[in-house]
Amino acid sequence: MENFTYCTPTKYIFGKGAELHAGEELKRIGLKNVVVCYGKGSVIRSGLLKRVLERLDAEGISHTELGGIEPNPTDPKVREGIDLCRQINADGLLAVGGGSTIDTAKAIAAGVPYDGDFWDFWAGKATVGTALPVGVVLTIPAAGSEGSGNSVITLLDGMRKISLRTDFALRPKFALLNPELTYTLPQEQTAAGIADMMAHILERYFSPTADVEITDRVSEGVLMAIMEEAPKVIADPCNYQARANIMWSGTLAHNGICGTGRKEDWVSHFMEHELSSLYGITHGTGLAIVFPAWMTFMAHHNPWKVAQLARRVLGIEINGDDTTVALAGIKRIKEFFHSLGLPVSLADIGITDPDIEHLVKKLHENKGDEIGGYYHLRAPQTTEIYNLAR
Amino acid sequence: MENFTYCTPTKYIFGKGAELHAGEELKRIGLKNVVVCYGKGSVIRSGLLKRVLERLDAEGISHTELGGIEPNPTDPKVREGIDLCRQINADGLLAVGGGSTIDTAKAIAAGVPYDGDFWDFWAGKATVGTALPVGVVLTIPAAGSEGSGNSVITLLDGMRKISLRTDFALRPKFALLNPELTYTLPQEQTAAGIADMMAHILERYFSPTADVEITDRVSEGVLMAIMEEAPKVIADPCNYQARANIMWSGTLAHNGICGTGRKEDWVSHFMEHELSSLYGITHGTGLAIVFPAWMTFMAHHNPWKVAQLARRVLGIEINGDDTTVALAGIKRIKEFFHSLGLPVSLADIGITDPDIEHLVKKLHENKGDEIGGYYHLRAPQTTEIYNLAR
Repeated sequence: MENFTYCTPTKYIFGKGAELHAGEELKRIGLKNVVVCYGKGSVIRSGLLKRVLERLDAEGISHTELGGIEPNPTDPKVREGIDLCRQINADGLLAVGGGSTIDTAKAIAAGVPYDGDFWDFWAGKATVGTALPVGVVLTIPAAGSEGSGNSVITLLDGMRKISLRTDFALRPKFALLNPELTYTLPQEQTAAGIADMMAHILERYFSPTADVEITDRVSEGVLMAIMEEAPKVIADPCNYQARANIMWSGTLAHNGICGTGRKEDWVSHFMEHELSSLYGITHGTGLAIVFPAWMTFMAHHNPWKVAQLARRVLGIEINGDDTTVALAGIKRIKEFFHSLGLPVSLADIGITDPDIEHLVKKLHENKGDEIGGYYHLRAPQTTEIYNLAR
Repeated sequence: MENFTYCTPTKYIFGKGAELHAGEELKRIGLKNVVVCYGKGSVIRSGLLKRVLERLDAEGISHTELGGIEPNPTDPKVREGIDLCRQINADGLLAVGGGSTIDTAKAIAAGVPYDGDFWDFWAGKATVGTALPVGVVLTIPAAGSEGSGNSVITLLDGMRKISLRTDFALRPKFALLNPELTYTLPQEQTAAGIADMMAHILERYFSPTADVEITDRVSEGVLMAIMEEAPKVIADPCNYQARANIMWSGTLAHNGICGTGRKEDWVSHFMEHELSSLYGITHGTGLAIVFPAWMTFMAHHNPWKVAQLARRVLGIEINGDDTTVALAGIKRIKEFFHSLGLPVSLADIGITDPDIEHLVKKLHENKGDEIGGYYHLRAPQTTEIYNLAR
């Protein structure tokens, strides 16, 4: 077990009507004039935004809207938000939406009090010190941004998609989680979200650190819960209990509790970011394609943790060496993703001739010649993994 | 799944040398003049206190000592601490020790800014609003107080042992967790701590709330990790990895993550508090005696969750109805406690003629005529459980 520091100060309010606490929570943390971020308008059509803004009005909190945030959010919207916040002298932000909206709000929050260009933080040229406080009303359980200190933004210039990770500075002050708000998510988005949260756990689970039984067992528990509840939300999108279990799982998958005391991997995320950049694939969908390929490579090169996952989580009870058990587990996880309607190969989404040379080149340009915590990978190996994803 | 609010703002610094952060952490939260609480002197003999105080000196933080805190801490020490804090105008407390020391520090922290008597909070006559900030250097993984908002104090007048539970007010600002500090714990104390942390999970696990798969699975994961690592620390008290896993498990067992979204039980704790009061038993030891008895009663009256525990955590694979499976699980857990050197009955600790009438009378006087979340119990039933613990 490695030394670690862990702090999750986000206040979670979970359950029916959670969004109605928006006003009192903003007031609790002392905000009076906020920018409310949202995406392409589903929160308007559903009436959610109106319901939330009424709560802000009731508490006397001024608000200005910043809508139109796109999936895989980019820097121009962040700059627009920074300008807006400065113009109206906003003292904080409320994100109403999923990961893209929350990540954009966090990036704005970091940028407003900073003299330089906000991208400095993402480029590793500066460290976020102070940031405006951010609150969240979550509508898509997937990215886990409601409980994390992370924010993924793409710089349009060069299409650089980078995840900034902070310990504390960008963790939301509060997150309001009402599972009912997720009833209307399209199946594809629900399924992609499930793949995303599973990947958040697996990136931490596939660690070179031994002797982290407690973190392994917690991670395995969250994975098992997701795999038990996922088919229920696909079968019945308005199953409150299943939606609730999935929503809370998505938060635990990425608030750090599944990573304590160990090095992490994150190569599958890096490889997926290149896929998203090049082909515009939904992040979670891309992960459902990359992860089995990455695991298949590992089954042949470093199988022990894949085999542990197979035995403990995926119900593989066959006798055999770790490689055999790992491969059986990968077959099971592919079946599981398929059962949710997710693709597990590039061919499944119609990409029959992927530009692997380009993907590998961009991957290592962005992330370095050698990547990976669980197993070190260079271009020949990442090429092999992209090929396994065909 | 029930609606819930969850917030754990405690900053955990975990690993070798964690205690050396005491000065900088106190400074980070703005403290300049603290009372340092500890127990009966082992932290002096081990040199830990000196090492910690040197870090305070290095940061220019004034400190005054309050030693001599006893196990099962009582109100006179709390009053002494409140007087001391007021006298020197302390702005916070640092607890160096286990649950008793931390709980005493928390009680002092609540009492100092309060005009009335601190016991008002424990008696349910007042709610903790503000409290002095508390930091922790943990030496005994057991009570989980380093991450909880709770504090258990006994009022000598009438020997009323009461656990105060707060959402946020009494959660430590930081907790420094160095597993090496636990190498020198006597086996009995290590084992009792393990029973205590397991009980903290089980009190939450035995819930009447259905459909909390995510919280069940996390709880089961922490329990499995404890049961795998516990024999290692008993066999080799200086096994760093096992000590580390146990220490972090003890925090997760009680910081609330195993309780989200459901009603909890806590009857076994209530019943054990009466045993401790009457016979001076170590809390964790008493829990190892009460819990199997409580579970045996449930195996016959409401077995489903005991059976789930048996199947998922205790490795019971026999076919049979829930009662049969539950009873096999209870046999397994008793064997496990015995293997750690813990008693599982009152007879095991030489109490052959327990005053059950007195225990039941005090229990219901303190906690009400009907108690229990998982199953409602009145005097005839609690009498039966105490009898099962003989």
